[in-house]
Amino acid sequence: MVRTSIVGAAGYSGLELIKLLLNHPDVEIINLFGNRSAGSRIEDIHPLLRGMISKEIETFNEPALNEIDLLFIALPSGQAIPFVKNAYESGVKVIDLGGDFRLDDVNEYKQYYKHDHSAPGLLNKVAYGLSEWNENEIANVGIVANPGCYPTSILLPLIPLLKDDLVNGEFVSIVSYSGTSGAGKSVSENMIFAEVNESVRAYKVGNHQHVPEIKLYLKKFSNVQANISFVPHLLPVTRGIYTTIQAEVDNNVNEKLCIETFNRYYENSPFVRIVYPSIPEMKNVTYTNFCDIGFTISENIITIISTIDNLIKGAAGQAVQNMNIMFGIDQTEGLLKCSKKKTYQAK
Amino acid sequence: MVRTSIVGAAGYSGLELIKLLLNHPDVEIINLFGNRSAGSRIEDIHPLLRGMISKEIETFNEPALNEIDLLFIALPSGQAIPFVKNAYESGVKVIDLGGDFRLDDVNEYKQYYKHDHSAPGLLNKVAYGLSEWNENEIANVGIVANPGCYPTSILLPLIPLLKDDLVNGEFVSIVSYSGTSGAGKSVSENMIFAEVNESVRAYKVGNHQHVPEIKLYLKKFSNVQANISFVPHLLPVTRGIYTTIQAEVDNNVNEKLCIETFNRYYENSPFVRIVYPSIPEMKNVTYTNFCDIGFTISENIITIISTIDNLIKGAAGQAVQNMNIMFGIDQTEGLLKCSKKKTYQAK
Amino acid sequence: MVRTSIVGAAGYSGLELIKLLLNHPDVEIINLFGNRSAGSRIEDIHPLLRGMISKEIETFNEPALNEIDLLFIALPSGQAIPFVKNAYESGVKVIDLGGDFRLDDVNEYKQYYKHDHSAPGLLNKVAYGLSEWNENEIANVGIVANPGCYPTSILLPLIPLLKDDLVNGEFVSIVSYSGTSGAGKSVSENMIFAEVNESVRAYKVGNHQHVPEIKLYLKKFSNVQANISFVPHLLPVTRGIYTTIQAEVDNNVNEKLCIETFNRYYENSPFVRIVYPSIPEMKNVTYTNFCDIGFTISENIITIISTIDNLIKGAAGQAVQNMNIMFGIDQTEGLLKCSKKKTYQAK
Amino acid sequence: MVRTSIVGAAGYSGLELIKLLLNHPDVEIINLFGNRSAGSRIEDIHPLLRGMISKEIETFNEPALNEIDLLFIALPSGQAIPFVKNAYESGVKVIDLGGDFRLDDVNEYKQYYKHDHSAPGLLNKVAYGLSEWNENEIANVGIVANPGCYPTSILLPLIPLLKDDLVNGEFVSIVSYSGTSGAGKSVSENMIFAEVNESVRAYKVGNHQHVPEIKLYLKKFSNVQANISFVPHLLPVTRGIYTTIQAEVDNNVNEKLCIETFNRYYENSPFVRIVYPSIPEMKNVTYTNFCDIGFTISENIITIISTIDNLIKGAAGQAVQNMNIMFGIDQTEGLLKCSKKKTYQAK
Repeated sequence: MVRTSIVGAAGYSGLELIKLLLNHPDVEIINLFGNRSAGSRIEDIHPLLRGMISKEIETFNEPALNEIDLLFIALPSGQAIPFVKNAYESGVKVIDLGGDFRLDDVNEYKQYYKHDHSAPGLLNKVAYGLSEWNENEIANVGIVANPGCYPTSILLPLIPLLKDDLVNGEFVSIVSYSGTSGAGKSVSENMIFAEVNESVRAYKVGNHQHVPEIKLYLKKFSNVQANISFVPHLLPVTRGIYTTIQAEVDNNVNEKLCIETFNRYYENSPFVRIVYPSIPEMKNVTYTNFCDIGFTISENIITIISTIDNLIKGAAGQAVQNMNIMFGIDQTEGLLKCSKKKTYQAK
Repeated sequence: MVRTSIVGAAGYSGLELIKLLLNHPDVEIINLFGNRSAGSRIEDIHPLLRGMISKEIETFNEPALNEIDLLFIALPSGQAIPFVKNAYESGVKVIDLGGDFRLDDVNEYKQYYKHDHSAPGLLNKVAYGLSEWNENEIANVGIVANPGCYPTSILLPLIPLLKDDLVNGEFVSIVSYSGTSGAGKSVSENMIFAEVNESVRAYKVGNHQHVPEIKLYLKKFSNVQANISFVPHLLPVTRGIYTTIQAEVDNNVNEKLCIETFNRYYENSPFVRIVYPSIPEMKNVTYTNFCDIGFTISENIITIISTIDNLIKGAAGQAVQNMNIMFGIDQTEGLLKCSKKKTYQAK
Repeated sequence: MVRTSIVGAAGYSGLELIKLLLNHPDVEIINLFGNRSAGSRIEDIHPLLRGMISKEIETFNEPALNEIDLLFIALPSGQAIPFVKNAYESGVKVIDLGGDFRLDDVNEYKQYYKHDHSAPGLLNKVAYGLSEWNENEIANVGIVANPGCYPTSILLPLIPLLKDDLVNGEFVSIVSYSGTSGAGKSVSENMIFAEVNESVRAYKVGNHQHVPEIKLYLKKFSNVQANISFVPHLLPVTRGIYTTIQAEVDNNVNEKLCIETFNRYYENSPFVRIVYPSIPEMKNVTYTNFCDIGFTISENIITIISTIDNLIKGAAGQAVQNMNIMFGIDQTEGLLKCSKKKTYQAK
Repeated sequence: MVRTSIVGAAGYSGLELIKLLLNHPDVEIINLFGNRSAGSRIEDIHPLLRGMISKEIETFNEPALNEIDLLFIALPSGQAIPFVKNAYESGVKVIDLGGDFRLDDVNEYKQYYKHDHSAPGLLNKVAYGLSEWNENEIANVGIVANPGCYPTSILLPLIPLLKDDLVNGEFVSIVSYSGTSGAGKSVSENMIFAEVNESVRAYKVGNHQHVPEIKLYLKKFSNVQANISFVPHLLPVTRGIYTTIQAEVDNNVNEKLCIETFNRYYENSPFVRIVYPSIPEMKNVTYTNFCDIGFTISENIITIISTIDNLIKGAAGQAVQNMNIMFGIDQTEGLLKCSKKKTYQAK
């Protein structure tokens, strides 16, 4: 039984994490921590949890670390560092769902996150939590930096094709659309319903903080320094990310070659579904930990499409998947809606 | 040419008002006033207006009243009183789109709006701007209190039936659903997209500030003191109100009688459409000044359904209709998408 | 291990049923049956099931009944009768999610469902599957008629108050709004996205087939012959029902009395949550088997609000709850996202 | 007064056309034609038109051409050809909103539209109706092929940059998202609300019929044979297109150069708004004839974003704009919500 606590239980990722952990047979939730929400009960903050869990949200305190094996941190980027430090020094494993430990370069961190990194010494203790590509590091480390939602949807389809040199990395065009829960519960005029509904807008064009993350891990896992252009958009749905990637391919690259490559890399990955020749649909992955990938090649251009639930595979679900890896539990435990007796069927 | 200015140009009703007035052949917009938005240009606050109007929003100033015939006030309830006072004392006509001059009882005002009324002496100078029922008063008064969005959708269908004693007023059940623009641009956690989308919630059950307004004007125009129960709900759409009313009717009341009554009262009302035996659909009235009304009787219960666009017939559109009445202009000018040569066909 | 098959696996209720059963530790899915979809694989019909189940949809055949303990029927109303008959005669228990076995009067059935009932002799072998009120019958019968989605949302809040004589049954006004999945996958022009989105419409006012069902079971479980008026509406969301009920109460009825009554009847019902004094929100119950109930009393009128997920508590979830009851399994198995060690906390 | 009739009045583009023409001071609607809808009244087919127009939809007949100056055809692609032929031979001008006269190569037409072109002789009598780039041809021709919605959103931002050689045309990545009204009222299972809502899907990747149209007119107006890759997506909104274009630029190309180019080409185009340095938002153009364009350059990649209302600038609005050009009326008549006295302010 893995004993866990959550910092940031009042947010959307915190809520998803609680729901997943309640459904996990090998996990116990010990404490829920929050700042503004401390003193409230979790079932009042998230009324959908009534009848499922009843617990007061507390102010974080170090002694509570003695009770647990693992600390989840589901805070906005920039706020996780002291908690990670505390946990690390107490010998408690930690999974940070935010962006504070994903980059390895503190200058780049400062450029994109707008403040200094206060614990640079920890950066080399961290494993990047892209479960499908970094299982060994995740299994053997104290701190896991859970990937961003956009990077998850981009790295999973791109790494195999870049790694096998099927795609020209000189100009990779990436257009992503995200549901609004990706912005968290932050209150601003441009996130109210009447501003988002029946509309679309791109944002942070050319300077989103996920750009260096994407480049860094494309390089790490595929060994290619790709030149990507990434344009995120806000979509009038609550959850889900849809990513459309276009890049040039050589004459000798065909769809058969790509499908073989995908199958080879992902045959043992229960949450990556290559749906070729179908086109992925967002509604097939929302509320699940799946990443669906499709693609087509036409006139030397490959179009690759992937979709995930930003709160599950893009946040809480991948965190649980990483927890499973860290504690030697089957990767799918608590995540796949099928009982153990059913074998996963790779398509 | 009616010269008008608008206080509160930065809000949703202000925007609709500008769009309607730009399209009105007999109106000139002189000044746009705002508080927080003062100093900004209107086309930056509402980028959809670019290319249609270019004007700086100013801080309100009394001398500017000398330039105009009519002042529109599109502020949250509670903020209009000083502007109305100023305009009234300067001899400028005024239409207040908020709730500050709708009730005739300052105690009731305080109970529902949570603060004292600072200009009770003006209350008897006001005409309630329900265009279809108060044309004479509106035409001859200095201050028009534009009706609330919910009351407009409720009064138009109920007044004729109560007035002709077709409906039993002892218990009138009213359920309304409103798009979120009714809440204005106010920023609060429960109005962000992810909290409203794919959901519904009732609010202010039994104590909405429109309850006394509905009762007061049902009494004034139908001469019946009805006992209403009103439950407003938030709907995941941007604009529109849908109202479902249920009440008991006597054995001798049938649908034929009701349709005759509606036709008699509304045959000269271009914006009230009795769609019987069809059922109104919200999308048929959004972006228009129409109120669609339908009904059915079954086992001594009448179900009456009405729908309006909360920002048009429920706010800016009815304000323009009232302006037309105040200045002797055809009621439909600037509001009906048909040129003058076409005769309106009452159904 | 309960061995089950599903007739109508290609529809929305079929899909939810499969998802729930895959997550249920004591159930095995043996066969999936369909008509138009026979010959297709279930993971092609519902691509979100890929990686979770892989099975061909078959044409129904009687011998297959020998392999199972329970047959679920998730067909449009009117199509279930021959399958129920077959199963019953083979000694296989059956849960029909449609409306064919809910009414006890074949004339009323014909009036509302527009065709004769071809197996009237079976009607007295049926238990109505409102889990919270009919547990004994459900546990001891061969055929369960799973309740309609609207009736579930209406019966659960109304029965206790009528039964304890707290609400005047002479005129009960009921307004319900439903997500579009309630209409199934049926293809008609008025269900396409552009016709439903940003709109609302009432439908079947006064003659919905759920009216006799509501009346019949209000009478059966509360012993009151209530005079209800029911107006269903289509809501621009995929799933969820929101019901607003208004009725008169006597002077001596107060909120304290009502909350005590609700608590008394539902203290052992894990899926009914009395959220008073909060107002239920639809998003707190979607994707769950909960029914949230709130209410308020003002000037002798009680407003009762309830909300469910039409596909879960209003269909597949309640069917699983009934299966659990029929086979002596804990009622919450496969339905509550909490492990067994956590005690359910009645609020 | 231009006398016009409409073939295909029952569809979404037909509806928008009627609304626009009713608001146009110089136009008279003579006849409405339809196939399936013939015999119905237009205000029953589109109930939002009640009180604005009352007319029976008729079966098309040649003699009716004698009454008019201009025939609009708002039919699905493939059905317009006989009507265009008829009108042309009768000397009546015609604007076809569909795709039947946009391509100049009958083989390409057959490849993408799946049937032979039955009037190839007319193809050289046609002007492509991209109002901003083809005013002279439009003004002097009998047949106008109104552009597709996607091409309009792509050609307007791309032509100036390609024409001035600012963008490298060797690989232009284009990702567009469209509201569902673009698919018309066609009824299919994958267009029902529950299939589209809270989801996204790409479709016709690499083989959409707008691809040859985009290439042809990029070449015609910019003189560059660009290699484009176009991926259309279905968006859960009713109306609007959002297009994101990425391409490489040379070192010497900067944002200042681009904004000068856009301003030079569009300074006299009232419906093209260069919103730089803002990012276009879809809700700022819906229900208008505007095309909003923004862009940014980062590391030798330009990202260009444009947005239109697919039913207005992408269909009925541009058709009215073209009618104005054909009949010597001011281009903005009936389209801009501002009276004539206000000068358009190019930003």
